[in-house]
Amino acid sequence: MVNNNKRLDRTFAALVDPTRRAILARLEREDGASISALAQPFVIKLPAVMKHLDVLDNAGLITRSKVGRTVTVRLRPEPMREAMDWLRRYERFWSQSLDRLAAYVESKEAEARKKRR
Amino acid sequence: MVNNNKRLDRTFAALVDPTRRAILARLEREDGASISALAQPFVIKLPAVMKHLDVLDNAGLITRSKVGRTVTVRLRPEPMREAMDWLRRYERFWSQSLDRLAAYVESKEAEARKKRR
Repeated sequence: MVNNNKRLDRTFAALVDPTRRAILARLEREDGASISALAQPFVIKLPAVMKHLDVLDNAGLITRSKVGRTVTVRLRPEPMREAMDWLRRYERFWSQSLDRLAAYVESKEAEARKKRR
Repeated sequence: MVNNNKRLDRTFAALVDPTRRAILARLEREDGASISALAQPFVIKLPAVMKHLDVLDNAGLITRSKVGRTVTVRLRPEPMREAMDWLRRYERFWSQSLDRLAAYVESKEAEARKKRR
């Protein structure tokens, strides 16, 4: 439970930053990217991108492999699954609001049908 | 998109801390709790709990209402929905691994059936 909590701490902390989320989102679309390709769309400098990659790596959300001079970064999405499972327990609140909305729409439709008769 | 990103920043930042997650999890089970009741299971002091509640409030994850001297804290789970939607795009990776596992089990079963013949 403690380890579980520490992993969640690291995952959520990694997801706090929009640059890191953008890197993850890109790696979701592309199967592996070089560090320079990853850094290219950002206005921040390469060392700052490297720091973000360190945070993602420490959270277990990416892997880095070096071939020659090129480091390829790949997504390792597993820790996000735990974060999502944690959030999932709140899902019933949204489905409840949808149920209430559906009930409201139905009652309005029933009213409208009555008036038409 | 920028506002969207800022909201996600705040939501994930609020979820980083295990005490704040425990408070949210409790409010998911109970419809409203007083601050002293919320603070009771933690070893940290009341002012520290109050600071955590401020973070949750700023992230729009709780509401606080005062009647007389009692402040009642309630869950406001909506921002978590956006966080979950963000995470959901990675879901296909987990279902892919499950698909691969299922295919592996099936091939093993087919092998076993062949051997029995």
